[in-house]
Amino acid sequence: MTDDAARERHRRRMQRQKEIVDARVAGATLERGVLVVNTGNGKGKSSAAFGMVARALGHGMKVGVVQFIKGSHATGEEAFFRRFPELAYHVMGEGFTWETQDPDLDRRAALAAWGQAAELLADPAFQLVVLDELNIALKLGLVPLDRVLEALEGRPAHQHVVVTGRGAPAALIEIADTVTEMRPIKHAFDAGVKAQKGVEL
Amino acid sequence: MTDDAARERHRRRMQRQKEIVDARVAGATLERGVLVVNTGNGKGKSSAAFGMVARALGHGMKVGVVQFIKGSHATGEEAFFRRFPELAYHVMGEGFTWETQDPDLDRRAALAAWGQAAELLADPAFQLVVLDELNIALKLGLVPLDRVLEALEGRPAHQHVVVTGRGAPAALIEIADTVTEMRPIKHAFDAGVKAQKGVEL
Repeated sequence: MTDDAARERHRRRMQRQKEIVDARVAGATLERGVLVVNTGNGKGKSSAAFGMVARALGHGMKVGVVQFIKGSHATGEEAFFRRFPELAYHVMGEGFTWETQDPDLDRRAALAAWGQAAELLADPAFQLVVLDELNIALKLGLVPLDRVLEALEGRPAHQHVVVTGRGAPAALIEIADTVTEMRPIKHAFDAGVKAQKGVEL
Repeated sequence: MTDDAARERHRRRMQRQKEIVDARVAGATLERGVLVVNTGNGKGKSSAAFGMVARALGHGMKVGVVQFIKGSHATGEEAFFRRFPELAYHVMGEGFTWETQDPDLDRRAALAAWGQAAELLADPAFQLVVLDELNIALKLGLVPLDRVLEALEGRPAHQHVVVTGRGAPAALIEIADTVTEMRPIKHAFDAGVKAQKGVEL
């Protein structure tokens, strides 16, 4: 095959690809707030939510974040995003639930965090709301699922929401627009590498 | 069961969970740069990489980003992250390859982007390097895989790297520390919702 023939074949293949992509884009015309759920046992559920926070701030959008299950260490993203006045950042008072070992304390902290989340979900000024590790709080029964579903369905029409955490409940997946399962293929941790700044912390 | 008995049962379950987590953490003692690969057909591969950029900037780390396959639109994360002097941000000259339909132009642009990536991978000052959509450039044969593997394996020992894009080659997965497959469960696009600011753009 000559170079010219190869180039022409490439051009036709790319042209076909472009038509497929253009048709898909032309078919997607609705504009509204979407509910995104990042779940599964793999890495990247919260990181992807924080990448969307960066993207939204880049567009000058007002963003709210509530972290439901807080690790015992301060994270880099918290240090980073707290710099921005256009972002409301709430962290649930206590550490991981297996650190506190007190169900009443956990429940009070989770409900306080949910109270902050409910305010964000009722406020049309917030264009993106991240409910980080809410799935864990739901799974542990610390926050009632029916109140979460109600608040999500009643939120302002243009508001985007991201919910993260393994084990997303079926009813949440049902009402979500975009759901991704982060599936672990391998993890450095299993090879004895500790959690590191900029990667996990 | 009395409240006290329930509380005690919860405490013991959480205590056991804490011992498992503590043992796992104690067993992971190595500190070194890790190679993270985000692949699969789902959403969140690049967002998760940019979440890690935020995390690293929160720790005052120096970060380099090369975007290999650039969409035709400016993204929010580009607008956002370009504000930070501690971040080197390179974008490959041309749009999606099915937009240009010229293999020579694509190859030149991809190789120029690879040249910038190779410089970052050789520079110990960069603590985190993101090679966004490199997997696509590899798949299209625009960048030679053997040169990529060699540069990754020869990089400074403490440097973290994130490679994103669907279809990660097996040889890259082989040398990676942490690999996640972003698996699509559902996507708003399929319900006719267009790509939106802060979510996809």
